[in-house]
Amino acid sequence: MSLLVVGSLAVDTIETPFARKERALGGSATYISLAAQYFVGADISLVGVVGDDFPAHAWKLFKDRGFNLDGVEVIEGGKTFFWEGKYHYDMNTRDSIATELNVFADFSPKVPNAQLKPEFLVLGNIEPRLQSDVIDQLQAQPKLILLDTMDYWIKSARPALEETLSKANALVINDSEARLLVETPSLIVAGKKLQQMLSPVTDRIVIIKKGEHGALLFFNDKLFSAPAYPLEEIFDPTGAGDSFMGGFIGYLARRGSIDYENVKRAVVFGTVLASYCCGKFSTEGIESLTLDAISDRFKELQFLSAFQEEPELAIG
Amino acid sequence: MSLLVVGSLAVDTIETPFARKERALGGSATYISLAAQYFVGADISLVGVVGDDFPAHAWKLFKDRGFNLDGVEVIEGGKTFFWEGKYHYDMNTRDSIATELNVFADFSPKVPNAQLKPEFLVLGNIEPRLQSDVIDQLQAQPKLILLDTMDYWIKSARPALEETLSKANALVINDSEARLLVETPSLIVAGKKLQQMLSPVTDRIVIIKKGEHGALLFFNDKLFSAPAYPLEEIFDPTGAGDSFMGGFIGYLARRGSIDYENVKRAVVFGTVLASYCCGKFSTEGIESLTLDAISDRFKELQFLSAFQEEPELAIG
Repeated sequence: MSLLVVGSLAVDTIETPFARKERALGGSATYISLAAQYFVGADISLVGVVGDDFPAHAWKLFKDRGFNLDGVEVIEGGKTFFWEGKYHYDMNTRDSIATELNVFADFSPKVPNAQLKPEFLVLGNIEPRLQSDVIDQLQAQPKLILLDTMDYWIKSARPALEETLSKANALVINDSEARLLVETPSLIVAGKKLQQMLSPVTDRIVIIKKGEHGALLFFNDKLFSAPAYPLEEIFDPTGAGDSFMGGFIGYLARRGSIDYENVKRAVVFGTVLASYCCGKFSTEGIESLTLDAISDRFKELQFLSAFQEEPELAIG
Repeated sequence: MSLLVVGSLAVDTIETPFARKERALGGSATYISLAAQYFVGADISLVGVVGDDFPAHAWKLFKDRGFNLDGVEVIEGGKTFFWEGKYHYDMNTRDSIATELNVFADFSPKVPNAQLKPEFLVLGNIEPRLQSDVIDQLQAQPKLILLDTMDYWIKSARPALEETLSKANALVINDSEARLLVETPSLIVAGKKLQQMLSPVTDRIVIIKKGEHGALLFFNDKLFSAPAYPLEEIFDPTGAGDSFMGGFIGYLARRGSIDYENVKRAVVFGTVLASYCCGKFSTEGIESLTLDAISDRFKELQFLSAFQEEPELAIG
């Protein structure tokens, strides 16, 4: 089924305790679409903005996969969104060394006419007002509208974010942002409160990402606790959250139906894509996977989280 | 099978954001044995020390359950170990207001002759030198020796702790303590390094407790990621870790055999007992459970962590 991806397209300079890479490919729309394509193939359209410095190998990467790029605006003489970050020893914290919005500062997403009826829509972490504007442009209700956001928007644009949430039916958010948005220490309470902020007329899906501790899925009145993939070493966590979103919505778009079993599996496939993302620099970890490799980690996650019923039911 | 529990017997004054309770029953041996008895019944012996102020209702609680108390030394005119703590709003942090070791300061555990061949031994969080001394007193190798420890001993008694670990085959430790003991940010690496510190001649079991994020089990070369029980409200977390240990070793002592499926289930039963412990003050949450109530939460944990195989194996 068709998937529309709206988000940033960027150039990242990344330093980790292990290595440094200058001007690598980045941006939420990049990671989301590269991760999703393993499941939906070419039926992906991107909406974003770049300068004419956007790397040739990135264009090639997208075109080779058959993505529709009609919605990617190229600003002649403009510079692509640039981010430079440095990760600390434990990889859980990072410093932003530079954030140059460049052409992204005036980004006003315009969905091409041919893409106004996507079956699945994912809105990467951009200004909530713009996310809302994309939803308003659509000519039909998608099966799923999935949002990302961040602490910056929670603090600076709460009313716009709340309006956007009320038009969506799925939110992916990390644990500290969830606690910030609904002001409660309990993640279980937070997830339920976040569900109440989503559109009341559809399924309500909230996923709280907990990094090395896995993720919690709130699907209507059901809960699912997903394990993290047990990585011994994280090479570069940049884009892991976006890869998660791409794997998640890509799998659902492939399946086409939003039910509890599919959504649980989608969380696990998101976890698999995020784990591969962390294994190499930039997008390299999710550029050339095989379905066998994806399936292997899915099965590993199943093995490490499954336990059997107590055989002796009357344990006393 | 017989279970020997060595640890503290205490009186706790606890303040949470919800309420305050003066001189409640506490101590690691208390929580461990109360949690374990649901699985092993009366076949539990305690080794500890109290003053003659140890509350009458505590004696009654132990005697009603048929515990062997020959190893509990009563110091006439002495005062029982007293701890006073205050929990913060998020329940994850607490301040120790008072720690009065009293008779516990000179505790030198002496295992009664009749208990020198326990099949299962659990050593609550006491000085590593004393834990080691208990192991040396035994006349036969137990099926399982389970240890707890804390940051204080890791910092102040590392050589003794390392010696004790080398005589044990199971360790329960929380995530920050695991990172401190083996100095690595990755919990996966930490768990494997901790296994190497245990006795090389038996199964090696390490459980890293992650609070609201569940627990990781390292069983020989296998890993298991256990979910947390989704509590919306924590009433009093005192003793949750000890209740976990009691549920864990109690279930294994009931089963009698240490295999991967049993050990995984034991982690889940430990999680169940810890969750009940958090629901009321002091030991109240684990004093009068039913096996049905324990079994219900076990099944809930199974439901919220299970996901099905991908039906379409060739997902591409």
